[in-house]
Formats: sequence, structure tokens, C-alpha cells
Amino acid sequence: MPSFATHLESAIDGSRHPIDRPQTTHEGRPFWVRYDLDAVARHLDRDELAHRRGGFWRFRELLPVERAENRLSLGERTTALIPCKRLGDELGLRQLFIKDESCLPTGSFKARGLCLAVSRALELGLKRLAIPTAGNAGGAMAAYAARAGLEAYVFMPADTPLVNRAEANLFGAKVTLVDGLITDCGAMVAAGTEPMGWFDCSTLKEPYRLEGKKTMGLELAEQLEWTLPDWIFYPTGGGTGLIGMWKAFAELETLGWLENNSKPRMVACQADGCAPIVRAFEAGERFADPIEAATTQASGLRVPKAVGDFMILDAVRASNGSAESAPEAELIPLMKRASALEGISLCPESAACLSALKRMVRDGRVQPDERIVVFNTGAAQKYPDLFDPDLRCLAPSQLPDWSQLASNP
Amino acid sequence: MPSFATHLESAIDGSRHPIDRPQTTHEGRPFWVRYDLDAVARHLDRDELAHRRGGFWRFRELLPVERAENRLSLGERTTALIPCKRLGDELGLRQLFIKDESCLPTGSFKARGLCLAVSRALELGLKRLAIPTAGNAGGAMAAYAARAGLEAYVFMPADTPLVNRAEANLFGAKVTLVDGLITDCGAMVAAGTEPMGWFDCSTLKEPYRLEGKKTMGLELAEQLEWTLPDWIFYPTGGGTGLIGMWKAFAELETLGWLENNSKPRMVACQADGCAPIVRAFEAGERFADPIEAATTQASGLRVPKAVGDFMILDAVRASNGSAESAPEAELIPLMKRASALEGISLCPESAACLSALKRMVRDGRVQPDERIVVFNTGAAQKYPDLFDPDLRCLAPSQLPDWSQLASNP
Repeated sequence: MPSFATHLESAIDGSRHPIDRPQTTHEGRPFWVRYDLDAVARHLDRDELAHRRGGFWRFRELLPVERAENRLSLGERTTALIPCKRLGDELGLRQLFIKDESCLPTGSFKARGLCLAVSRALELGLKRLAIPTAGNAGGAMAAYAARAGLEAYVFMPADTPLVNRAEANLFGAKVTLVDGLITDCGAMVAAGTEPMGWFDCSTLKEPYRLEGKKTMGLELAEQLEWTLPDWIFYPTGGGTGLIGMWKAFAELETLGWLENNSKPRMVACQADGCAPIVRAFEAGERFADPIEAATTQASGLRVPKAVGDFMILDAVRASNGSAESAPEAELIPLMKRASALEGISLCPESAACLSALKRMVRDGRVQPDERIVVFNTGAAQKYPDLFDPDLRCLAPSQLPDWSQLASNP
Repeated sequence: MPSFATHLESAIDGSRHPIDRPQTTHEGRPFWVRYDLDAVARHLDRDELAHRRGGFWRFRELLPVERAENRLSLGERTTALIPCKRLGDELGLRQLFIKDESCLPTGSFKARGLCLAVSRALELGLKRLAIPTAGNAGGAMAAYAARAGLEAYVFMPADTPLVNRAEANLFGAKVTLVDGLITDCGAMVAAGTEPMGWFDCSTLKEPYRLEGKKTMGLELAEQLEWTLPDWIFYPTGGGTGLIGMWKAFAELETLGWLENNSKPRMVACQADGCAPIVRAFEAGERFADPIEAATTQASGLRVPKAVGDFMILDAVRASNGSAESAPEAELIPLMKRASALEGISLCPESAACLSALKRMVRDGRVQPDERIVVFNTGAAQKYPDLFDPDLRCLAPSQLPDWSQLASNP
């Protein structure tokens, strides 16, 4: 089956560009992948999807990879949409769901974008890929590049969590730490493009990661029987997922697959130490100024400048949504509280969503009966440095003081 | 729908025991859960399963939980059976698959057993659970207990990997480190049963973890279109998964669901520093002597004495399989090599399987055309302590020496 993707369209000026060769940006700004959606609607019945297995590739007609042999797989899946009654009760919400991306290959949502990017790289004959990363994207690219037999170069801040540093190396990528931020890593990847002949897989410089992230929106619609929630709370670093979901909803509307065309309000969630999108949203700007000296424990949110800033802000505003920033001190406690209430491995980035949600419920901006989806973008297990507990330790011959066990730690 | 489980049967003397109340062991040895398989065969068509979603509970007729509201879920899934061409080429095998358990909730196969154990605990009205663990089981029990709203007490060796220590605590379990081995933790849990009133969820003392692990065998049969592979290589600590799969295959045979009744040869894989099953297998014993001073980097294999030793050895022998031990020095290199060749996050325990497989191919005991399944029981990301690489680090203003990038580390 050939792809239904027809061309790339500049997100900044709408110009049309060919899709049959490696492309990065136009005027320094991202591309949209465009499809012949009429043909998709003729070819594919929405309800046929229920009978398909195979993770992201269930949606292959809405993805840009042409040939089946290039569709890489490490066992991707439709991620669970988990009803959260206890956490909902605590927040005063009756319909709270967490879409849990922690059980994707390499333990984060980054598998979606990088699966697509590396599949397309394989299809286009690229041999050597490079990526700047806040952490999880580097591991995901390294894994899919290993699967494809392509060379991978990963650049990450020196203080990226241990698991991210280790996993990229495990998959055979050539990893370089940079004593700076992801933007510094991005500059290094850009500088190496000519001498190293690699393809720059930075999100939104590479056009297909966005299509991978789009599958979050496609899955969500299917899981809610082709309706959409009232609100989506999304941890926003580069923001590709938020942009991708908004694109997904537009495509579903064009396809006529939604039961009604009521779209969710999109909330871009950041942390106080790095909230460029929140700042631009509040200032009424379409482009976000870079943050100096960005710092947050939620490493995935430490993106001082997003190349797709205007695409995030356009989506947030078109949805009548918001951009919200979380106090740093709330992140780890909320991560722990939600994990202990629901048994979900919540990452610190997603805790920023819970902070925003809590505040918006309290302020009356979110209503108790509204249907809320919070994205958990990665497994807590990837951030053990953040919550290494100080545990009691006994000698094997020593029996515990039973009365103390329940109280500590 | 009521459960088709009818009773518990002692694995040591065949005596019959009621299933409608909390049970641990009989004569210190495990129970089998028995079902009315004739009724299951009448009630359920094998091919109906293809249309079901919902992870382990797809097989609910072959599981012991009666009421739907007690079937806990954190978004379990059928784990991927990933063809491994590059790794197969390197080992001289044409049909090598890895069944990848790393994308289950909490990132390991322990989710299977603990999902079932905690679901049954909820059904039986238990409130407080305790577990000794080599690492991953503690995290999994803590997560499902959080989901169920039950209290969890976790005892683990003090040198358990950081991620395991942290995750159990994250889910709100009361964690105690013990400066010893899992057997010391088990003794502490046993000692606390009376003063603390908890239920001992040690594997094979608790009867339902085995049923959860059984789903690995059910999934595998379904994925191979109701045939079974020639060989299964399984990392064996407590061995519950190996026993569970062997039980699954027997039940499938009784149900008449297998296309032929050719069973796989089961290989129990351990590490040189803790190989009690291998020692007993080679000595022709049915029970294994405990290992003194057990030590291996593959923390999940550090089980000096398995309560189900005879069940493991019975299955291995009945299958005409083997028990094989891996040199410690091979584990991390094999883990890295396989992860880099295939993009799968291979854990060190599973590297013990690759060591055994490599040797058995070389010795001519495994043939190049045989169909091999290796279990990857957890995500490499849970063991970053083991492979923290020494990475180059650059200042942000410093451009790399491009010629050096590819060679290092």
C-alpha cells in the first residue's frame, strides 16, 4: 500500500514541498505532513481499526511510511487510558483519566515520534542520525536506530537523568554530554550536520516525529468511542505531542470519523523554572522568547526554546485552552501522591499537569463533571535520582520493631 | 461470570484444598490452582480471544478471579514477540524471538503475578500484604496494591537496584531494606505474619502469582497460532514463570486448543554466582540445596532457595529441557550486545539466557532452524547502576572533535 501522504506544507507560510526526499525546515520553521484525506476516507472504515493489532501502525493510512518493510516495530501498543477514581476524588473530579505512555518501548512517549522518524529515515535511505535530547528522546532514537541498523549520535545535557544517559549508550548510540541545555545540544547537532553527514532528528526539524505523536490523539479518540474529552493536560517541553494531537483531531474531523466535532481544550503544562510557552501565552505573543538559565527537576520540560512555539500557542488558543506553569516544589510531592493513589508510574513532567489541574479546579475553570485526560509521558522508573528514598535498613538477624513499620518512611 | 477455578491442589501430595479463603502452602510446599477445563472448553472458543482486548484478563476463564470488579488493571498488554534477525544471525539461528516483558506496568514480568495476587487478595478481603523481593516484584506488588487501595509492606536486600528501591516507595509501600538476601527478607515476612496480620505474598507461597505468570504461556501459544516453539529460554530465580508456562501448556493441551501437542523444551537459565537449580539438575536431584553467599549482578536471579524448586525441575525434565548457568562476566556484555543489535531493552537476567543459548548452539544441542523464544523479563532501564557509561562531556561552546565522535565510547 502506498502512503496517502502527498506533500509537506510549511507551517509558517503554507508553501508546498516534496515529501520524497529528506527535509528539515523551511525558513527555519517546521513542516506539516499533508495527506489525501478523501482517499483515506474512501479506503478505510473507522470501525475496521478495532480489528487491527500492531500499535502505531494500526493507523498506517494516516502515517507517512510507504512500505511495510520500513515500518519498524519494538512492540508498540495502544497505551492505556486509565480511570483514576482516587486521584479524581482528591482533586474533586468525577471523570479523570490518565493516558499512560510509560509502557511504550524505552518507557516513554518519545517512542512514538522516534519510531516514525527512524522508519522514514530508513525509507529515505539515510544512514546516520543525530539528535539533541532532554533525555527520553535520545533513548528512543537509539533503540529504533538499533532496530533499523542505522548509526545514532545523541547529545544530551550532562545532568540528564542517569537512566537516559545509560540507555542511549546501551543501544549502541554514540553519546556526548554537553555541559549546558538542550538548545546547546541542538546547536552542536546543527554544527555537525556538514562534517558528519548526519540527519538532524531534532523534533519539528525532522517532520515525522510530529506524525508519530499524532497517534496519541488518534488512540484517544478511538478509546473514547470517537468522541474527545473536555480537557487535555499535556506536559509541554518541545510541545510536539500537543501539536500532533491537535493535528490528529483536525484530520479526524475532516475524515468525518468523530461522533461530534466538540474538541478538547488543550492545556500546555510547564514548570516555573522553564515556562516559555506560558509566558508567551500570557503576554498574547505567538512566538516565545527563550528562557535564560532554565532549570527544573522535570528534565523533559527543560526546553528553553521550542522551534514549534507558534504551533503550540496556535493550538492552545484555537482550543480555548490555556498554558499553565507549576511551582517546582509541587512536582515531586504530586508525582508521589498520584503514583501512590493510583499505582501508575507517574513522571515528574506529568506532575506539572496535576498542579495545573488542581489549581484550575480550585479556581472554577475546570468543572467537576468535565471529562479530563492527563498525559503521563514516561515511567517514573526513569527518574530514580529524583526520589531515591532514605529507607530503613536491618541486619538479617534483626527483627523489625513491628510497631514502627507502618509509620516509616 | 463465576470463575472456572474449582480448588487448590497440593503440588507435593495432590491433596485437595478449598479456594474460597486465603491459602498459602501445604506442608510448606505450593498449591496448584485447578479449573473445570471441560466447562471452559464448552464456554469459550479459542478463536474468540483474538477479538478481546484487555491484557491478562483476556484469559479470564483460565484465571482465578471471580468478579469483574476485582480484576485490577494498570493497562496490561499482550507483550510483543519480537523477531530478532541480527541477534539470530550472530548466534547462528534462523528463528529467534524475544518475548519482551519490559513494556508491562512497572517495566517487568512481575506485573503478571502480582496483578493476579493482588486482585485475588482484594476478592478475598485481605487488607495488608507483605512481600520479600529481589527487586521487581516489590515494585509490582506496590503498584497493584496502590491500585486496589491495600496496604503493602516490601522487604528487599539492601543492595537491590536503586530503581526497585525507589519505585516501591513511590507507590506508597512501606519498604524495609535487609542487609542480606531474598531468603532473609522472606524469613522477616514470615516472622511478621502474626504480629502484623499481613498476608505473605511470597511467590508460590501465595497461590495466584503462578496463575498470572501462566499468561506468558497462553499469550505465546496464541501468538504462534496455537503452536509452541521448540525451545524456551527463561531466566530462573524463583522460577514461577517457567512453572506457570508449563502449566499453561498442559491446560491448553487438555482444552484441545493446540494445533499439535509438541511442547517446547524448557531451559532454566541462571548465573554462576547463584545456580541452585542447575546444580540440582546436574546432580539428578528433585530438590535444590540452598546456595551460600549467592552473588550475581542479575539481581532477579539472586534467589538462593526456591520454594518451587521441584516444580521447576519437574517441568525442565518433563520437557526434555535443561538448566544452564552463565558466567558472570558474560552478562553485561551480552545484555549490551543484544540491546544494540535489536533495540530491545534487555535486562541482565535475560542475558543469562543468551549465554546459555550461545553455548548450546555451539555444542550442537540447539539446531539452527529450531524456533527459539527467549524471555526478556524486564527493562534494562531498571538497572542503570549496572551500565552507567563513562561518557565524554563537552562545554557548550566547545565543538566536538568530529573525527573522534564515532570511536568513543
